Amino acid sequence: MKKLLPLAALVLMGQAPPPSLVTPTSDEILAKAPAAHWIAINPDDLMVMDSAAGRMVIQLAPDFAPAHVAAIKALVRAGRFDDGRIVRVQDNYVVQWAAKPGAGQEPVSQPPDVREQRVRASPLPAEYERPIKGLSFKRLPFADAYAKAGFVAGWPAARDRKAGTVWLTHCYATVGVGRDMPPDTGDGSELYTVIGHGPRHLDRNITNVGRVIAGIEPHAALPRGTEALGFYKDEAARTRITQVRMASDMPGFARWQMLDTDSRTFADWMGSRANRTGFFVRPAGAADLCNLRVPVRETR
Amino acid sequence: MKKLLPLAALVLMGQAPPPSLVTPTSDEILAKAPAAHWIAINPDDLMVMDSAAGRMVIQLAPDFAPAHVAAIKALVRAGRFDDGRIVRVQDNYVVQWAAKPGAGQEPVSQPPDVREQRVRASPLPAEYERPIKGLSFKRLPFADAYAKAGFVAGWPAARDRKAGTVWLTHCYATVGVGRDMPPDTGDGSELYTVIGHGPRHLDRNITNVGRVIAGIEPHAALPRGTEALGFYKDEAARTRITQVRMASDMPGFARWQMLDTDSRTFADWMGSRANRTGFFVRPAGAADLCNLRVPVRETR
Repeated sequence: MKKLLPLAALVLMGQAPPPSLVTPTSDEILAKAPAAHWIAINPDDLMVMDSAAGRMVIQLAPDFAPAHVAAIKALVRAGRFDDGRIVRVQDNYVVQWAAKPGAGQEPVSQPPDVREQRVRASPLPAEYERPIKGLSFKRLPFADAYAKAGFVAGWPAARDRKAGTVWLTHCYATVGVGRDMPPDTGDGSELYTVIGHGPRHLDRNITNVGRVIAGIEPHAALPRGTEALGFYKDEAARTRITQVRMASDMPGFARWQMLDTDSRTFADWMGSRANRTGFFVRPAGAADLCNLRVPVRETR
Repeated sequence: MKKLLPLAALVLMGQAPPPSLVTPTSDEILAKAPAAHWIAINPDDLMVMDSAAGRMVIQLAPDFAPAHVAAIKALVRAGRFDDGRIVRVQDNYVVQWAAKPGAGQEPVSQPPDVREQRVRASPLPAEYERPIKGLSFKRLPFADAYAKAGFVAGWPAARDRKAGTVWLTHCYATVGVGRDMPPDTGDGSELYTVIGHGPRHLDRNITNVGRVIAGIEPHAALPRGTEALGFYKDEAARTRITQVRMASDMPGFARWQMLDTDSRTFADWMGSRANRTGFFVRPAGAADLCNLRVPVRETR
């Protein structure tokens, strides 16, 4: 039987270790993933937002916020987001945008103290959490300040086992529904995405409806608003949303996939992200939920 | 003796509770802090960077990276950062800038594969951690994925009790020293600040030298670079640094203070941030280290 030298000995001897002994990088793990470990994202859950800053692709989460996602899709198909505006950019927090006001509605871009006074036409119920029943929860093997964190059906999430509930968490690129002070006043016409350290204190205080899977960069780089909470003072400072459509209504639009968070590949990928090599002289041995952004990819 | 009604009873009775029974907000806690709970920041540790994007004030941490901070101050006073460039902006990660190359040095703005080949004139030793002896460590009362986290002398930090060491952590606005692949090649002429979810996997893999305490916003809003790791392709895309000075060399520059992380006010503030009221229908009951940015303030 051939005696195997440990990796360290090979390196000391100046020999390149055989590839099988080298810890694969997270990119290599993804490249080798069987096709079955990737899950197709339903094009009817992909919202494609074109703004003056660029195109942003948002994956909606109907399993977690069915009423809000249905309302948002209806707004999209009614053209209500077309000619909307990015009304707020707060550093280390959120980019927020709003549909064009409908007949009889006030503009949505007012500062919160004014907006609190107004009544929405058709508020939706809060969808802050849902029963965990029927869902597979992949527990994050590392500590979390806020809850028992993990992944559900491709989404970063947290659970309360006793209450039997699960909810989507606020990480970079998470999309939530802006609301006024009463918890049920969001109607889906005003959305935001996170552009800073995951504000996990918002979990279960706001309805999360999805995440940006492409094109967040130019939007995260928009000038921060000068007013309280990062609202823009003047109309001229607001970035115009030219058009928002569902990918299923756009013939030829790219197909997207997300990594199955129940797959062996995801577990390997997560282990690799927690133990980075190369540049890293001391792998962390752990990773925060929001530093484990579930891999997605565009397919042809 | 007057009988006190519990807060809930007062609210049910429709009475406004007396102010003393209402949980103070974090702003109210800070407003009421005794002067002794604030610590003056040494103006000789404040680096003032003016770029075409705006002014950024950086607090250096000589107690954690004495060699690097000394080197950076020397570079500042030699004018080496004047006419420097912001060379890299990677979304959800870092903004990185570089001093003007000195005689015999290559430009610092090359992509990493080229930069790895070059030898720095005077590399500094890694200052990734230091002995905890003599420092008061305020343990964060919430879980952390990466380490035993907390605060030391006004800084977010983590410790290894067995090894007796402590280190500054990577949170939003943390400033670190760019390095090549070998861990000792940073010389302080290339710095970065975090503009995304805290990349805590960098902890103890890079020398942290401080944090941005003012003016990060316009820099975090710079266009992301188009090359690998967010490097800018063309010189024209790089933001020019006009001048960098130490506040102690700027007569009349504002004085700054940070909240004493060993004070009662800080403990109260932390509790308040973990249990937000007002908009929040379900206070988190906890907070992540990087969501607890140590309060600083400008004084006259």
